Amino acid sequence: MKFPTLQASPPPPIDTPWADGTEGVTQCPILPGDTFRYKFVVDRAGTYLYHAHYGMQREAGLYGSIRVALPDGQAELFAYDYDRSIILNDWYHRSTYEQATRLSSIPFLWVGDPQSLLIQGKGRFDCRTPGIEANRCNDTNPECSRYVFTVVPGKTYRLRIGSLTALAALSFEIEGHNMTVVEADGHYVEPFVVNNLFIYSGETYSVLVTADQDPTRNYWVVSKMVGRDNKTPNGLGTFNYYPNHPSRSPPTDPPSGPRWNDVGPRVNQSLAIRSHPNYIHPVPQTSDRVIILLNTQNQINESVKWAINNISFTLPHTPYLISLKHNLLHTFDQTPPPDVINGYEDYNITNPPPYLSFTTSNSLYRLKFNTTVDIILQNANMKDPGYSETHPWHLHGHDFWVVGYGNGKFNVSEDPKNYNLVNPIMKNTVPVHPYGWTALRFVANNPGVWAFHCHIESHFYMGMGVVFEEGIEKVKKLPSSIMGCGDTKRFIKP
Amino acid sequence: MKFPTLQASPPPPIDTPWADGTEGVTQCPILPGDTFRYKFVVDRAGTYLYHAHYGMQREAGLYGSIRVALPDGQAELFAYDYDRSIILNDWYHRSTYEQATRLSSIPFLWVGDPQSLLIQGKGRFDCRTPGIEANRCNDTNPECSRYVFTVVPGKTYRLRIGSLTALAALSFEIEGHNMTVVEADGHYVEPFVVNNLFIYSGETYSVLVTADQDPTRNYWVVSKMVGRDNKTPNGLGTFNYYPNHPSRSPPTDPPSGPRWNDVGPRVNQSLAIRSHPNYIHPVPQTSDRVIILLNTQNQINESVKWAINNISFTLPHTPYLISLKHNLLHTFDQTPPPDVINGYEDYNITNPPPYLSFTTSNSLYRLKFNTTVDIILQNANMKDPGYSETHPWHLHGHDFWVVGYGNGKFNVSEDPKNYNLVNPIMKNTVPVHPYGWTALRFVANNPGVWAFHCHIESHFYMGMGVVFEEGIEKVKKLPSSIMGCGDTKRFIKP
Repeated sequence: MKFPTLQASPPPPIDTPWADGTEGVTQCPILPGDTFRYKFVVDRAGTYLYHAHYGMQREAGLYGSIRVALPDGQAELFAYDYDRSIILNDWYHRSTYEQATRLSSIPFLWVGDPQSLLIQGKGRFDCRTPGIEANRCNDTNPECSRYVFTVVPGKTYRLRIGSLTALAALSFEIEGHNMTVVEADGHYVEPFVVNNLFIYSGETYSVLVTADQDPTRNYWVVSKMVGRDNKTPNGLGTFNYYPNHPSRSPPTDPPSGPRWNDVGPRVNQSLAIRSHPNYIHPVPQTSDRVIILLNTQNQINESVKWAINNISFTLPHTPYLISLKHNLLHTFDQTPPPDVINGYEDYNITNPPPYLSFTTSNSLYRLKFNTTVDIILQNANMKDPGYSETHPWHLHGHDFWVVGYGNGKFNVSEDPKNYNLVNPIMKNTVPVHPYGWTALRFVANNPGVWAFHCHIESHFYMGMGVVFEEGIEKVKKLPSSIMGCGDTKRFIKP
Repeated sequence: MKFPTLQASPPPPIDTPWADGTEGVTQCPILPGDTFRYKFVVDRAGTYLYHAHYGMQREAGLYGSIRVALPDGQAELFAYDYDRSIILNDWYHRSTYEQATRLSSIPFLWVGDPQSLLIQGKGRFDCRTPGIEANRCNDTNPECSRYVFTVVPGKTYRLRIGSLTALAALSFEIEGHNMTVVEADGHYVEPFVVNNLFIYSGETYSVLVTADQDPTRNYWVVSKMVGRDNKTPNGLGTFNYYPNHPSRSPPTDPPSGPRWNDVGPRVNQSLAIRSHPNYIHPVPQTSDRVIILLNTQNQINESVKWAINNISFTLPHTPYLISLKHNLLHTFDQTPPPDVINGYEDYNITNPPPYLSFTTSNSLYRLKFNTTVDIILQNANMKDPGYSETHPWHLHGHDFWVVGYGNGKFNVSEDPKNYNLVNPIMKNTVPVHPYGWTALRFVANNPGVWAFHCHIESHFYMGMGVVFEEGIEKVKKLPSSIMGCGDTKRFIKP
């Protein structure tokens, strides 16, 4: 079977930067009872996610997936019989309000590990959790039923998987079945086969899975938290071969999954992903600006924050998009954050940060329109010795090319020589691995203001993010629907 | 000692109806991080309360008391040595968000009784409460220390007491000490002596208490929940005679307080309050309109609501004050609620409501400016046989005269003949007792839009309220600071 080459140049700017949904960046919050209409051009087929972007509200459950079909007459680059979507998540018993309160408390209180991992909204938890009524744990409770993925023997399924975890990096697998990865974040990738898929919060993947095993039994579907030592029970679902009963448990023990602290396979998956040869967005061969974003975890007095280049990010009360378009420059800090910290050459990423203090700021990076920008995500040791975490970074308003990963500290003069400038994938969310770096390239061609942040809910809440502005002068008249908060009240003229 | 007669005519309209703080009625919500400045004329000395008026946020702790001093040169109508303020409250372990979610759930979930009663923010709870870490219960936890009211033997204290309970009607007493009630809701009352003071959410009282007992020991201060069968432990504080150590427990058992279901003494206290003879606001001898507000508790499917005249109140998303001033009449229901329900004559208040269904509506009462209005709060049986609760009703923008209380059903032709039109007190919050009625009179002379609602947080959330409009055409230009939500976005012209 021969597949077509798909048109693969980056889409033009979409001209509606106010439809991004990021409170404080592109719009005021949507108040209880109010209605906000997002109107935007859907410019590429693929698998996407939507979710609340206000405080920690996403993890209260305001999220879902979006499946964009190919235009009529176009065919996919791969064949399958059925198309299914699932969302993987984690789940806390404490409300997101209480979690936010803990993170803002002095002394700081961490939110801890989630109580459950959810597969398409279904999960289970350790019944010995303190404070839990026993009846919430009962197997007869329909809320505790497992996710069931029913398959017809011999058929091939496209399974679109999105992760919207608050915290957990996940390994996902279907017992006894390989998966062929064919799509990532809405882009076709060169197909590659995995036994288990690592997926980080904010990412989507399509995998093909064929029901080619013994059809007289069912199999386990497992999601497992990796990257942190944790007691969270694995998420369990059933891969149900029709016509077996969906509630029939598989005869085997569920696969235990990879070890939580085995970084190698996760890095290998990142390195394995390439653009599909029939679907390549040519990457600019040079860049105009390099920004090195060093993450550190900082503690001052009894408060703990994340910082990028020693600045812990806070959102302004007047959204940047409005402030910049209407020159309300008093509404946020005008000192730009640094492209690289002073003393980066001497910074030892394997030690806890030498400085405990940090600055909180709502300043942003202003990018020259249509220039090419390289972002280096530089991971480092956390505040306690011996720990460095995976962070999935998500960029709004753009896809970026992932031009390189590396272990240790980024070498400004040497590492760019090894960038993949031939067939790098495009994504909108990418992990930076423990003690490693990830290099991204994008063209600042979408007029607007765009958040770029760790997609772990509590990390962004603790300041792990930055914001880019580009081409604000090209942004058209802003709709009044995005206004109403902060200094935008000056525009209210009844 | 002779006291002066104080000027006692009702103050003129205060001309700032947007400074009332009622979300959905007089303003849009104040967003996180935003600042809102309330500016208004303080027009009468006395003891007042302030609190959040958004969702159930008050009970999350956003409240306090306001003490307005007499103008220079004026003296109080009573003598005391020291002036002290306390707030009584109840406290739930569940967050107010979770409580609101329960009340909106299908099936309906009641919030239950509070875990604690607080005296000036301090309280205790039953350590056997499920889900509570034992260390939160430890007596060495400074959060569990008792409120201490230190007094000098022989001195007289003015104690200003406010209640902002979410649910509880309270009895408050100081072991072995009588209290002389001298002020209610900012108005002087004819002094009367009580052993225990009944106080409902939204009310304030000043009592005089003299430290005239055996000074070699301390005494208990007790708040007790009445009006509902409950397991909430009494709130306990220490009435500490200087120089005894404040942490010394009294040698006696704390007074157990009145029985929770003994309505008689509570009604008697209501009947005992009269205006101070030197401080009388003459009450209009006739009224122009009578509105009978019958409360019923209604259940439809698995949802439970409170209704007034069979309408369960909901707040609009565009504040009335703005909608009415700017003629945005599509933003709320234009059908006015009835002054009395059809079939009121035949309604049996001792039975559960014969109708299960109810209407939810955000319609309001429009009052003719400067007319005198009588409001009859008519209590009735709840949805289950044999229950009728006390409801403390609070009126915004006005004080009202409390012209009568009665047991059973209000008789439109007979009961008004027994109104107290000589020396009724003025208040802004008043209870309607179980199976009884309370009659109020006020002059609709404050241009604006004013909520009138049960001050029990969950009852208002469940629909127990109404809204009055008067003299909207006299309201001056609205400040843009109250806008930004709902249909007020039409006024945003950047």
